[in-house]
Amino acid sequence: MTLLISMGDPVGIGPEIIARAFVQGAAADAVVVGGVGVMRRAMALLQDPWPIAQLDSARDLPSCPPRCLPVWQPEGVPAALDQLPWGVVDARAGQAAARCIEAAVHAVQRGEGRAIVTAPIHKAALAAAGVPHPGHTEMLQALAGGMPVRMMLANDELRVVLVTIHQSLKSAIDAVTFDAVLGTIRIAHASAQRLRIAVSGLNPHAGEDGLFGDEEQTIIAPAVAAARAQGIDAHGPFAPDTVFMRARRGEFDLVVAMTHDHGLIPVKYLGVEHGVNVTLGLPFVRTSPDHGTAFDIAGRGVADASSLIAAIGWAQAAAGA
Amino acid sequence: MTLLISMGDPVGIGPEIIARAFVQGAAADAVVVGGVGVMRRAMALLQDPWPIAQLDSARDLPSCPPRCLPVWQPEGVPAALDQLPWGVVDARAGQAAARCIEAAVHAVQRGEGRAIVTAPIHKAALAAAGVPHPGHTEMLQALAGGMPVRMMLANDELRVVLVTIHQSLKSAIDAVTFDAVLGTIRIAHASAQRLRIAVSGLNPHAGEDGLFGDEEQTIIAPAVAAARAQGIDAHGPFAPDTVFMRARRGEFDLVVAMTHDHGLIPVKYLGVEHGVNVTLGLPFVRTSPDHGTAFDIAGRGVADASSLIAAIGWAQAAAGA
Repeated sequence: MTLLISMGDPVGIGPEIIARAFVQGAAADAVVVGGVGVMRRAMALLQDPWPIAQLDSARDLPSCPPRCLPVWQPEGVPAALDQLPWGVVDARAGQAAARCIEAAVHAVQRGEGRAIVTAPIHKAALAAAGVPHPGHTEMLQALAGGMPVRMMLANDELRVVLVTIHQSLKSAIDAVTFDAVLGTIRIAHASAQRLRIAVSGLNPHAGEDGLFGDEEQTIIAPAVAAARAQGIDAHGPFAPDTVFMRARRGEFDLVVAMTHDHGLIPVKYLGVEHGVNVTLGLPFVRTSPDHGTAFDIAGRGVADASSLIAAIGWAQAAAGA
Repeated sequence: MTLLISMGDPVGIGPEIIARAFVQGAAADAVVVGGVGVMRRAMALLQDPWPIAQLDSARDLPSCPPRCLPVWQPEGVPAALDQLPWGVVDARAGQAAARCIEAAVHAVQRGEGRAIVTAPIHKAALAAAGVPHPGHTEMLQALAGGMPVRMMLANDELRVVLVTIHQSLKSAIDAVTFDAVLGTIRIAHASAQRLRIAVSGLNPHAGEDGLFGDEEQTIIAPAVAAARAQGIDAHGPFAPDTVFMRARRGEFDLVVAMTHDHGLIPVKYLGVEHGVNVTLGLPFVRTSPDHGTAFDIAGRGVADASSLIAAIGWAQAAAGA
């Protein structure tokens, strides 16, 4: 049940929070997919560094001695990445980050691992490297065959799955279609056993019977009804301003939100450290911390590994389930 | 510094939470503007009811004995309201609720009080009574002369002022104009001394440099710049999904939110009991609890007075300041 952790952008905080997660004992049965030099430089930022154990593949994890960091450096990851300055967008860094994600997916497809945790990448570095995907989710979706996927954000008290993500609010409203809402409910339903799913509305007060918009009546309620007809325990649409509070109190296990910020505002409100980003719909488990590369503090050894550790824990639990 | 508390819909939970607030000692220097019979019936729901002291006007508050509920019943409030069934929309109830709000405003305008706390009214009852306003805010605005007002929601950790409120999300996007944003910042700024104001974006990641929408660049950032040029300590636009968390942690005192649910999701996330609704821009202080008439539990003596008590506390502090 090996877990593969892609290093993320080598000049961001990814490598150092990975190193910290291992040293804190929070990354059992995991292999880093990344540059050996990159991980050595990151490990050296910690007070109690572990030596690096270079593996030829993820399959070799059992040969890694205790208190060593197991690193598999896939072909195509250049050696000199540990010479790059911290926190500066670099095409070589973006290229290497993308290569590690790709290698991790292929390893999972070969049966060498059951779950992938991705450390943060930088959009501009990816673009500079000519990678044709804006982020992890799109890249993983393409590598896995193009099936529909959805972003879930989760912390100890709330799980949210998003119908729309990275687009303007205006265009997101048009993207809230019957198929998109029903598809999201179905993907959310498949993510765990016996989920009570709340579906949020789009408009204030869930439209107040059509007074403040009709998407609830014409799109969302029919999608909820269709999901229920398929045996899914879905409810709503509910007023956006209270549905997350109701889920937090235990009335529901998961909320389907129409827009990026309806869903992410409550997940992040109590603090981003413990948020986990989960891609649902892929044929394997994939999680990531709910923050970026933090170029402003990279290389100083001060980055907080909490969200990565939560992402590793979520992946271990989901892959074991 | 008398506080006027309008009774709200007589068949909702308003009268009983008002009674509870007095009995709990949380309504010093306050007069109920409402029906004497209504308040007597509500008081009888409590375990330790106080007698009613009927006043001829708010000015007579000093004549109210201790541990008595001071009620001023304005002309035009019928006597038989205490015969109406709990929790059923009724035009007479809506009419009386509206009459009490009107009387409270006129009393404040005559100098007989400095602040108004409004218990919840029911939209359908108001409409059934032919009242030409959909809610408190619009009615108070009209009674006070029609100046621009904004809704603020506040609890112990967060204050949010909304640019748009009760309209579809699609139309709200169009209502986010330079004037609306700047006007909101100015009204928010005037609500207290030395506020550090964060202005939220509209789009995911505040538009990500125009990639996910341009309202931040064309509308919100210019409005923030104009506010700063007027000496207002405004900042942003910031990504909606983290700005509320940042304010909660103390980086800002108040967040200006573009939409109803961006602002209300975080205010309500930790529980609605302690939320206070404040109307900014009026020539007097006006607050209300952040919940409705709760017709489903009205008349059972179980309604929670916490939000009303918080609204009274806020009004006392603001009127005293």
